[in-house]
Amino acid sequence: MDPSTLATLLISCADRRGLVAGLAQVLSGHGANILDSDQHTDRDAGQFFQRIVFDVAELNTDRGTLERAIEEVATRFTMACRLSYRCGSDGSPNKKRVAIFVSKYNHCLYDLLLRHQAGELDCDISLIVSNHPDLEVVARQFGVPFRVQSKSRDNKVEAEQHELDLLREFAIDLVVLARYMQILSDDFVRKFAGDIINIHHSFLPSFIGGRPYHQAHERGVKLIGATAHYATADLDEGPIIEQDVVRCSHRDEVEDLVRKGRDLEKIVLARAVRCHLDDRVLRYGNKTVVFD
Amino acid sequence: MDPSTLATLLISCADRRGLVAGLAQVLSGHGANILDSDQHTDRDAGQFFQRIVFDVAELNTDRGTLERAIEEVATRFTMACRLSYRCGSDGSPNKKRVAIFVSKYNHCLYDLLLRHQAGELDCDISLIVSNHPDLEVVARQFGVPFRVQSKSRDNKVEAEQHELDLLREFAIDLVVLARYMQILSDDFVRKFAGDIINIHHSFLPSFIGGRPYHQAHERGVKLIGATAHYATADLDEGPIIEQDVVRCSHRDEVEDLVRKGRDLEKIVLARAVRCHLDDRVLRYGNKTVVFD
Amino acid sequence: MDPSTLATLLISCADRRGLVAGLAQVLSGHGANILDSDQHTDRDAGQFFQRIVFDVAELNTDRGTLERAIEEVATRFTMACRLSYRCGSDGSPNKKRVAIFVSKYNHCLYDLLLRHQAGELDCDISLIVSNHPDLEVVARQFGVPFRVQSKSRDNKVEAEQHELDLLREFAIDLVVLARYMQILSDDFVRKFAGDIINIHHSFLPSFIGGRPYHQAHERGVKLIGATAHYATADLDEGPIIEQDVVRCSHRDEVEDLVRKGRDLEKIVLARAVRCHLDDRVLRYGNKTVVFD
Amino acid sequence: MDPSTLATLLISCADRRGLVAGLAQVLSGHGANILDSDQHTDRDAGQFFQRIVFDVAELNTDRGTLERAIEEVATRFTMACRLSYRCGSDGSPNKKRVAIFVSKYNHCLYDLLLRHQAGELDCDISLIVSNHPDLEVVARQFGVPFRVQSKSRDNKVEAEQHELDLLREFAIDLVVLARYMQILSDDFVRKFAGDIINIHHSFLPSFIGGRPYHQAHERGVKLIGATAHYATADLDEGPIIEQDVVRCSHRDEVEDLVRKGRDLEKIVLARAVRCHLDDRVLRYGNKTVVFD
Repeated sequence: MDPSTLATLLISCADRRGLVAGLAQVLSGHGANILDSDQHTDRDAGQFFQRIVFDVAELNTDRGTLERAIEEVATRFTMACRLSYRCGSDGSPNKKRVAIFVSKYNHCLYDLLLRHQAGELDCDISLIVSNHPDLEVVARQFGVPFRVQSKSRDNKVEAEQHELDLLREFAIDLVVLARYMQILSDDFVRKFAGDIINIHHSFLPSFIGGRPYHQAHERGVKLIGATAHYATADLDEGPIIEQDVVRCSHRDEVEDLVRKGRDLEKIVLARAVRCHLDDRVLRYGNKTVVFD
Repeated sequence: MDPSTLATLLISCADRRGLVAGLAQVLSGHGANILDSDQHTDRDAGQFFQRIVFDVAELNTDRGTLERAIEEVATRFTMACRLSYRCGSDGSPNKKRVAIFVSKYNHCLYDLLLRHQAGELDCDISLIVSNHPDLEVVARQFGVPFRVQSKSRDNKVEAEQHELDLLREFAIDLVVLARYMQILSDDFVRKFAGDIINIHHSFLPSFIGGRPYHQAHERGVKLIGATAHYATADLDEGPIIEQDVVRCSHRDEVEDLVRKGRDLEKIVLARAVRCHLDDRVLRYGNKTVVFD
Repeated sequence: MDPSTLATLLISCADRRGLVAGLAQVLSGHGANILDSDQHTDRDAGQFFQRIVFDVAELNTDRGTLERAIEEVATRFTMACRLSYRCGSDGSPNKKRVAIFVSKYNHCLYDLLLRHQAGELDCDISLIVSNHPDLEVVARQFGVPFRVQSKSRDNKVEAEQHELDLLREFAIDLVVLARYMQILSDDFVRKFAGDIINIHHSFLPSFIGGRPYHQAHERGVKLIGATAHYATADLDEGPIIEQDVVRCSHRDEVEDLVRKGRDLEKIVLARAVRCHLDDRVLRYGNKTVVFD
Repeated sequence: MDPSTLATLLISCADRRGLVAGLAQVLSGHGANILDSDQHTDRDAGQFFQRIVFDVAELNTDRGTLERAIEEVATRFTMACRLSYRCGSDGSPNKKRVAIFVSKYNHCLYDLLLRHQAGELDCDISLIVSNHPDLEVVARQFGVPFRVQSKSRDNKVEAEQHELDLLREFAIDLVVLARYMQILSDDFVRKFAGDIINIHHSFLPSFIGGRPYHQAHERGVKLIGATAHYATADLDEGPIIEQDVVRCSHRDEVEDLVRKGRDLEKIVLARAVRCHLDDRVLRYGNKTVVFD
């Protein structure tokens, strides 16, 4: 199969009869071949969610006509829907543009860059932003533009404005906070039009806030965790995309938890980013639907 | 939602365009409301699989008409398809009838009976068959008919014939071998019209055959496993439904592996049985598609 | 090896040189054969912990003399130490006496009783206490005395006094709260001389308090957990003995979390109880050392 | 605590009374302070294993005298024992020298180099050997000598001889086969005096030999695994140090298994190498004792 003619449609709306058949009919009527379809109904919330992957190689119309037909169904059922083509009509790839924000820890950064190099992440890693110059050497190894924006109590507003300018300049769709040790302001989160994924080094909602491995050690837990979530105005409170844990014991001092946690952070963040890039995640309220 | 009007359709066929839309249209056209749909294409095998759950409460025809329409699509696309209603037209529940085969170990038996009591397994546990009388007391506690069919090298053919008669008498759909320490003959497997699920106490294909915990201890593995699979003529070679593992170490002697393994066996077998009962498993070749 | 002559020594004290050799010498000097020894030093707390299993079959003195020698070392190093023999000098087993407190959920109760029956738990299950009569039938199946002590806002003090009397009457060493839906007062916890293990159906410190599965569903976590801990005056705040998690997704409604959680609760509680019974757990501050 | 005065003693011998006390006494008698001690008895094999970590900062003799005393005990009990100091008497670190063998896959190589950089692996990574020049760029980024030794059916003997020369030249203690796609001959394994750790990309003993992910896909397993083991003359048959698994499903094609497997391979190999470097692994027969 030629992946260049694939498209993904993400839908959410109030649950109503005939939704599934309605969409299937529109797609099939225009010659789109449905390859994969996954759906979910949250009965408490009365919400319906669907992800459809289809092939437009043999459309009997053009993309514009298909889009208008989908829009018509969307309006009829009051759907929110998001359509993305793997490639443009001219065959050029439509990759999401990603900026990675880091401080001094390099493990998540290396991990994302190496996965990208291995073909695991279908995106352009377009920019690395840091409040320290330390990781420029890594950026250079992988040929990614690197910008330093130092941060202090005094320059927070200007610094964030500059970062927003950078995101616009590089046409960024997704910001990944890869153990970025700075808190982004509500204002930043609201102003940035794309998505922001953060990795928190605990099993949320345990150990919100600073130094979660110290908190975990203090409490004497027998597992430590990591959580990837969309950043929202409330710190560590955004919709969770992925979590995992690893066993620890009385033998583990804080530095052991830090070491074990690095592996967790890398894997959990990478899974979340990959799901997001593949248009597998739908947000609603403070939750996510992850079609995998 | 009233679960009594739910139906599940399982489909497999060679992959072709228009399948998904074709079925969705038929269902929706008869007033069936699609609640859940999951599908899979095995590209190597060129096979398509789908599971559709729909509600027939507001059919604008009757079940017979709907069934004929589905059959018509099935014929058109050369589909194998299996339709099951949660309840009959008269509202009486359509539960699968299950026989559990045991020897002397009681842990899987208790586990299945307790899960059934807790409402986790949507079936009738209609019969318990054993080659020993030991577990009759458990059967009696849960009010399930218990039959002893002793087995020896000499009476194997007659014994199996008697078991097949029992399965027919009790109208059994599914046999669960819950640590049944006897090997069923090819003949038995072929003659029984329903399905047979076995739990093997290793991570297949490791440690096929007898005494897998001894084999695992001998080899010095660091994880032990359990595998639930459909029984086929080839011992321990049937399609795998579910597997899991648990960590072990040099400290674990064989009896520790046996103890740890009991938890695995129970959980893995119960998950497989539950998936089967909910019509989530499709077999093809020596593999399964498990929609969960 | 004859397990009836085994003894276990648990030690905790401020870390000092010569501890390990001092004890080894005393034991060996009296003809005790050290079979297993595990130790841990918490450097932050400056605390040393050790568990020694030894065989007294070939003591060249008697138990009393050995005990006085151990006491002498314990005094010299200001150790807290706890010595337990598998059997008395007359060969009669020294099993811990356990009371299980339940309400209406039967899964943890059945699980503990079946594990005990299978020889996994080295104790006497001497008493089951409930605030409801429902589970008496289970107690009877396993031949365990069952006492109902109903509880209401009005009778709490008297009810707990009666429960304490029962624990004294049955000479209980360990109370296991097996999904006992009542909160024990500080007073109860202080007055009961033995230990109390509780199972909380969340990954503590997440979702402290009531209805943790509802809280987990609300928050949209991707894993749910269970925690076995010693009960202390502060609800859900006692030293954690064991924890585990299982994966969940947007597909899981609260009742699915409850179902998946049952397996977790059983396994986590059983592991904690087993470790406690085998004298593998040492408490200090709000933490535990679990030698496994 | 100053780690530079730590020493580790690994012992194995036939199980006999008085072993533990005998060693503790010798160490303590010379002023060595025992910090950690772990032991294991394999009852079937009648073998005893112990790992003791002690501090020689306040020896009341010198190292030579202590060593002779340990040797005396070792002779008395017919022990095999291995003593290693964290630093020499002059304070210079005694790190194991490691060579990493790779072909073209870079994930395990990067992983080991980054963990080493992060301080997780207490060793010198002294050499990288490959049968292809591709990964020289990675070696250069981390400043590690890189040698290419191409291999073909015709030059196998000479090539291995050259590799053995390299290992001698660089004074290598440990060879790590980090997805090295060549089979080392029995001769190589016998001639190299140090240890060799290999990562096999399956849950051994499943899927021995080539293309294990293809084999796993073919068999339809629901978990895939990775195994780190000491290389021996028999391919994939050496003593297992560490294993782990990850869940897969019918949705995973071979390339998905390869992707998921990369994470497993990295983590399992790194854990095994770390345990080996910390003198936590004892081999006996075809098994290991791993003190962790």
